[in-house]
Amino acid sequence: MAGDFQVVEFITKVRDGVSPSPLEVKRFAQAILAGEVTDAQVAAWTMAVYFRSMAEEALFALTCAMAESGHQLDLSAIEGTKLDKHSTGGVGDKTTLVVAPLVASFGVPVIKLSGRALGHSGGTVDKLESIPGFRTDLSKEEIIAQGKELGLVLAGHHKRLAPLDAKIYHLRDSCGTVESIPLIASSIMSKKLASGADAFVFDVKVGHGAFMKSLDQAKELASLLVSIAEQAGKKAKVVYSSMAEPLGSAVGNSLEVREALACLEGKGPGDLEELVLALAEAMLSLAGIEATREDLAAKLASGEAKEKFLALVRRQGGDLGALPTAPFREPYPAERDGYVQGWQTREVGLIVRSLTVGNPAGGVEILAKRGSKVQKGEPVALIHAQSKEEIDWAKEVLAGCVALGDLEPQKIPLLLN
Amino acid sequence: MAGDFQVVEFITKVRDGVSPSPLEVKRFAQAILAGEVTDAQVAAWTMAVYFRSMAEEALFALTCAMAESGHQLDLSAIEGTKLDKHSTGGVGDKTTLVVAPLVASFGVPVIKLSGRALGHSGGTVDKLESIPGFRTDLSKEEIIAQGKELGLVLAGHHKRLAPLDAKIYHLRDSCGTVESIPLIASSIMSKKLASGADAFVFDVKVGHGAFMKSLDQAKELASLLVSIAEQAGKKAKVVYSSMAEPLGSAVGNSLEVREALACLEGKGPGDLEELVLALAEAMLSLAGIEATREDLAAKLASGEAKEKFLALVRRQGGDLGALPTAPFREPYPAERDGYVQGWQTREVGLIVRSLTVGNPAGGVEILAKRGSKVQKGEPVALIHAQSKEEIDWAKEVLAGCVALGDLEPQKIPLLLN
Repeated sequence: MAGDFQVVEFITKVRDGVSPSPLEVKRFAQAILAGEVTDAQVAAWTMAVYFRSMAEEALFALTCAMAESGHQLDLSAIEGTKLDKHSTGGVGDKTTLVVAPLVASFGVPVIKLSGRALGHSGGTVDKLESIPGFRTDLSKEEIIAQGKELGLVLAGHHKRLAPLDAKIYHLRDSCGTVESIPLIASSIMSKKLASGADAFVFDVKVGHGAFMKSLDQAKELASLLVSIAEQAGKKAKVVYSSMAEPLGSAVGNSLEVREALACLEGKGPGDLEELVLALAEAMLSLAGIEATREDLAAKLASGEAKEKFLALVRRQGGDLGALPTAPFREPYPAERDGYVQGWQTREVGLIVRSLTVGNPAGGVEILAKRGSKVQKGEPVALIHAQSKEEIDWAKEVLAGCVALGDLEPQKIPLLLN
Repeated sequence: MAGDFQVVEFITKVRDGVSPSPLEVKRFAQAILAGEVTDAQVAAWTMAVYFRSMAEEALFALTCAMAESGHQLDLSAIEGTKLDKHSTGGVGDKTTLVVAPLVASFGVPVIKLSGRALGHSGGTVDKLESIPGFRTDLSKEEIIAQGKELGLVLAGHHKRLAPLDAKIYHLRDSCGTVESIPLIASSIMSKKLASGADAFVFDVKVGHGAFMKSLDQAKELASLLVSIAEQAGKKAKVVYSSMAEPLGSAVGNSLEVREALACLEGKGPGDLEELVLALAEAMLSLAGIEATREDLAAKLASGEAKEKFLALVRRQGGDLGALPTAPFREPYPAERDGYVQGWQTREVGLIVRSLTVGNPAGGVEILAKRGSKVQKGEPVALIHAQSKEEIDWAKEVLAGCVALGDLEPQKIPLLLN
């Protein structure tokens, strides 16, 4: 095909550290969509990007090509600055369930499409679907109507949202290139741009339970997310938060919904509320509303944010009264006296992923977080499971997830800079 | 598949610069053969190897796995040290046609399986097949019988020789990873080990018309070739030769056979004979025979080497009397007075590849090589083609391949160290 896009030349260029032009990237993406690029070529290209990174303009071109590869939401019929929030994935992170209704209760529309659990990290869609009847598969029309009328939508990603991203992600997942930071940024932003919001707050998680292990990596990712958003003419802010420990106490779908409900009344765990307020403050400021953390805490205490969440659940067909509980619950006791030195957050996430297979009520509640003083036999966690066998398995594997020691450990701040 | 080979983990390890163990490499190769690894995974792995290289033990394990993936020749029935010679590819390189019969005429068996043209470089099999009737597709049994009786075999690679190498090479070719030096070494050596010789001389080409553009790259490749050969218990020597210019005068299949015949009588171009003698000396020394260049030149002048070649051609069905000539021949004249500064060797190779499509007699004879003093209008090359249109096209494209200047250029040595 003389004159056509030269795939091998394109890959070789990337491999040799020569940045392709935005137009070349666009043509590469089009060639993938047209079936003119083999999976092997896409995979080799992702590995070359892993080593060579991508220039910001080229990354933007890739992101746009992925965003434009499928359905795109046009939210212009909804008045005001449409806000979205994205977490890079953590354990026990139920902030969306609290921060979205909290922000919406200020009259600013929050239209957020979420994903499912990935690896050790939980997914908002899975949490919402633990509420019996709750529909996350809203049509474009339903999203726009609900956005107009309620000012709040929490739905799932369409299959047809950024299908080119799905294809490339699938290959990365099989080829050891998931960890490419520019490819992570473009994957996130392709879905964000296709979902049509005007402004984004990114909750970039750092630490053992996060995909970004260091603050440097987190900052690299954040700067690419913001660069892509701004190149697309969107506003964006970043909050860095520690994923050294699970966020709050509950880890597991319906357990997290319950904890979110408590937080929506101002009765949630301190770390969860702290992050919720920081995210809500950043989101509102993007809509031109300067709310102090006191204003936000008052909004929670007033019950307004909770009302918004209950209205969302009703509108999307959910029945919170039927929220499931696990048939088996058993405490996991401390093996010795001492201070909790910390939790292996990633492992806790993986254990909970296993406990929640076919059981939205499964999970683990962390009762004693880092720095808690406990006595031997005192419960440090509560396991929720479908069977006694699962309880026994969880106890066995949790043993390696918590460390006790004589010295009180230093506190790790939740919000990082 | 718990307990099975973890492909993503393997690729990630390579990506992160952690050398996999030989056993892990072997299991990876087996998993590819078993269809448990996708093309995308193989491609991503080759790109990771491009960036991270491979430890010598791991490279040996890969080479063995490829060598063992198909048919293997057992040459033990042939007496003596079975010699082989491999050129890394060049333009006008017909040395095999001379050096193999020359060495064999000393009574040392030369059993060489060759490949076809690749990119801009010619292939011994294509040259041999320009002799009408010459069979390169010998069976295992034919190779062994001929090796015993004639002590000389020049055949083509079986399709079933190292099929895993063919698969990986095919992916590399589509994915921009052909240039990985360890993968080049393992690809060469997989076929060499499967072809069963005891000792190898590598003619590693350097320069514009070679795959290795610098002596450093050539030395890296040579050291890996020798490392693999020695790990396999084989003997090996390296000759480095310049591919700054086409070797000899003739470039093109039957043209090169004619030049080889002249060289076999001691009447070949000086550079070709110089390289032939160096390679023959190295090969014979691996078989314990110390022949001086004078001894070797005498063997050519005596006609013994040529007799060996003629016997080979007869045995493999070829009819040298029917060697084709091209219907159209036209000189390419110098555009000005001056010294030839040099030829764009790679481009000459590509032009000849085009002239030889469906026409084994097509090609270019270089009449004035680097350093020749010519006058305007004097022929610097002779084009052999199938039609007047081809002649005109070749003239047009050859214009950019030769530079003339006022100063006599410095000589580039053929043999490098």
